Amino acid sequence: MVDLVIDGCTALVHDDSGQIHFAEDAAVVVHGGVIDAVTSTREAASIEAVERIDGRGQLAMPGLINCHTHSPMVALRGIAEDMPVEEWFNDWIWPIESNLTDRVVELGARLACAEMIRGGVTTFADHYFSMDRVAAAVADSGLRANLGLAFFSSQGAEGRERSLDFALRMRGAADGRITTSLAPHAPYTVDDDDLVATAALARRHGLLVHLHAAENRAQTDNSLERYGRTPIGVLQRTGLLDVDVLIAHGTGITTKDLDVLREGTGRIGVASAPKGYLKFAWDTTPVRGLVAAGVAVGLATDGAASNNTLDVWESMALTALVQKSAENDPAWLTSRQALGHATTQSARAVGLGDEIGSLAPGRRADVILVDLSGPHTQPLHDVAAALVHSARSADVTTTVVDGRILMRDRRLLTLDVPEIVAELNAELPALTERRKGKRIQDYDG
Amino acid sequence: MVDLVIDGCTALVHDDSGQIHFAEDAAVVVHGGVIDAVTSTREAASIEAVERIDGRGQLAMPGLINCHTHSPMVALRGIAEDMPVEEWFNDWIWPIESNLTDRVVELGARLACAEMIRGGVTTFADHYFSMDRVAAAVADSGLRANLGLAFFSSQGAEGRERSLDFALRMRGAADGRITTSLAPHAPYTVDDDDLVATAALARRHGLLVHLHAAENRAQTDNSLERYGRTPIGVLQRTGLLDVDVLIAHGTGITTKDLDVLREGTGRIGVASAPKGYLKFAWDTTPVRGLVAAGVAVGLATDGAASNNTLDVWESMALTALVQKSAENDPAWLTSRQALGHATTQSARAVGLGDEIGSLAPGRRADVILVDLSGPHTQPLHDVAAALVHSARSADVTTTVVDGRILMRDRRLLTLDVPEIVAELNAELPALTERRKGKRIQDYDG
Repeated sequence: MVDLVIDGCTALVHDDSGQIHFAEDAAVVVHGGVIDAVTSTREAASIEAVERIDGRGQLAMPGLINCHTHSPMVALRGIAEDMPVEEWFNDWIWPIESNLTDRVVELGARLACAEMIRGGVTTFADHYFSMDRVAAAVADSGLRANLGLAFFSSQGAEGRERSLDFALRMRGAADGRITTSLAPHAPYTVDDDDLVATAALARRHGLLVHLHAAENRAQTDNSLERYGRTPIGVLQRTGLLDVDVLIAHGTGITTKDLDVLREGTGRIGVASAPKGYLKFAWDTTPVRGLVAAGVAVGLATDGAASNNTLDVWESMALTALVQKSAENDPAWLTSRQALGHATTQSARAVGLGDEIGSLAPGRRADVILVDLSGPHTQPLHDVAAALVHSARSADVTTTVVDGRILMRDRRLLTLDVPEIVAELNAELPALTERRKGKRIQDYDG
Repeated sequence: MVDLVIDGCTALVHDDSGQIHFAEDAAVVVHGGVIDAVTSTREAASIEAVERIDGRGQLAMPGLINCHTHSPMVALRGIAEDMPVEEWFNDWIWPIESNLTDRVVELGARLACAEMIRGGVTTFADHYFSMDRVAAAVADSGLRANLGLAFFSSQGAEGRERSLDFALRMRGAADGRITTSLAPHAPYTVDDDDLVATAALARRHGLLVHLHAAENRAQTDNSLERYGRTPIGVLQRTGLLDVDVLIAHGTGITTKDLDVLREGTGRIGVASAPKGYLKFAWDTTPVRGLVAAGVAVGLATDGAASNNTLDVWESMALTALVQKSAENDPAWLTSRQALGHATTQSARAVGLGDEIGSLAPGRRADVILVDLSGPHTQPLHDVAAALVHSARSADVTTTVVDGRILMRDRRLLTLDVPEIVAELNAELPALTERRKGKRIQDYDG
């Protein structure tokens, strides 16, 4: 008797070389939170299961992974639009964040979890404040997450120590679904000594480091002017490329930086969130160069205060579209490549390359079902193209994490959205009041 | 007694200067296919109506307008991916289109209508073959459309004559919901004499001309080399800028072309379909310059063989995002500007600027309801931003055209998708067979 069988579906599977295939009339067998087998519906017919899901007309694939977000920032969705990043940080986000409370963080994280479950996200990497409250939301929602408590050097050594304390205390929480990171904010807000110390702590404790770097070209130019090094050069010098590191954005990564990244001995990932780059009129992440340098490029949404959604389907489609345009090559970043970034590459980027990212025996049972019967996905000449360029987050019908069903037929089973929204709305007036001169940092990247 | 009242909603309305506002707790009153009033829910409470829709938690706005598509091409969705436009046309689309049948066109158009109704599109401008069959789909589906029968000069004078015959015979069909255009394919497939004759016919019969022009930069360069004029220069010389004209794409429009467009005496519209431009690695439509030149810029999807969906929400979001990036200006193309393109500008572009595009007394009752209660649109700091950057086509719950409800609570009332898909799938093997040397044209733009 197994826990769960999903049968009758098309299954997105990877072969040994990482290429994507679609198995027709497939069955996904789940037991003990793990994928037991991906087999045929016929073979699975004789397997007894506590629960069965009829996957006919649907596609089963690994749950999506949001490689970089600030989940509680959904509370600020749409509050600061159509402006440059300096104004966005200094006049809006950082003043408002001086009002953050544990309660806002938890309500925001819960709303974010609801949005992500509905969009087929099963794992997210979060970098924010009051992370114990985010961890509580992760535990309750049933999602998987890598969590890091953000710090700035302006907090003194205490910032780094609290980030470490959180990472050590919470790793393995929520039945093992929570992993943790050390989370320095960025090379322009965390000094070299702090970064060196962070690298040493990461090595000693076997922790991932999750930080922003080379977010845009201006940061790279400013870093060169101030320190004689690019932000990636700073990471190299401080030892952060020789530990496991997850770099958010990297749209300011230069061609020379690619060689520096190639020489790093750590597992290096970059999280790309292309929607916000368009919105801020930045360049985009140099995906082609990064992949050639052996860097895992994962998909991300950043926070909803800039990205407006936590929709990784959007990030996947935009990555394909924007990369073709940026490389001036319609044959680059095919739908299968985009799905590779969404699955195995994103799993590697968040440090879970052996646990999630493919439907294969022994992997955690993080599975989503996508309805491909809608008029916008038919007829189905090319399943990969349908997933990347036609399907949308609303086509996800079912979301499973660790074998537990978090959404079924689009009904959320672990979170109550109207209640969360009502409670969050009550907090918004106090949250969004901007007091003269109050802000958590100055943006001068 | 009126036909329909939608109450309790937020209504997107335009003021006299065309600026967008959101009226809270509004009611839209519909009678005889026309908007009778946009008033308050309280005022509307005493109005007796045949039908009432509870719009609480939803936003009412003018139905979206797809300003350029080839609706039957949904039959080819995903068939030719990740390749340059030359290969796409010459090796795939034009060989396959030599197999087109009336039946495929009608089934494709019906599927397209289903997709568009579900995505909140109430009007589309179509440019294709076997347009009587598209007209039949429009009539049955309940949508509004501007239809043009495409022609090439390779067909001789007969092509133009058939396009005129269709335009005169079908205008006013489907209870007036069908308007028509003359539809030369493009300046690179239709010669100057044919274009001159088309302009004369358009003037004589009061018809819109709908054609592709300056689709990409290479076409502009080739046109300059061959004819000493840009495609826009060809339109000017042949008189097409002095009649009402709808130009598809225009990503190859030059700065000098903008002056030429400004001097045109016709009502000039450009339809922008940004997703396909990214996919083919083209530049994008110069929206800023066109708007400054007084050209109406409408939103479009092109056909699903390149765009993969007929999703105007996607086009709206991408227009905002890509224009910010292309102009290197995060403050340009705000959410309200994007909504302006989606509503009044699109209505003008398809020649229906006085009939549709706003919720105002006397306009045709083409109304959609958008659910803004989902976790991905909450909280609601900025309704315009929520519509452009957070909402998606799947958030459209209700679609009304000419006062008739075509979709209610996401259930299609005029079309049966599984039946259409089954019938279309049966036609696909014969459609997609590519016979050596057979194609309807050669792409050499």
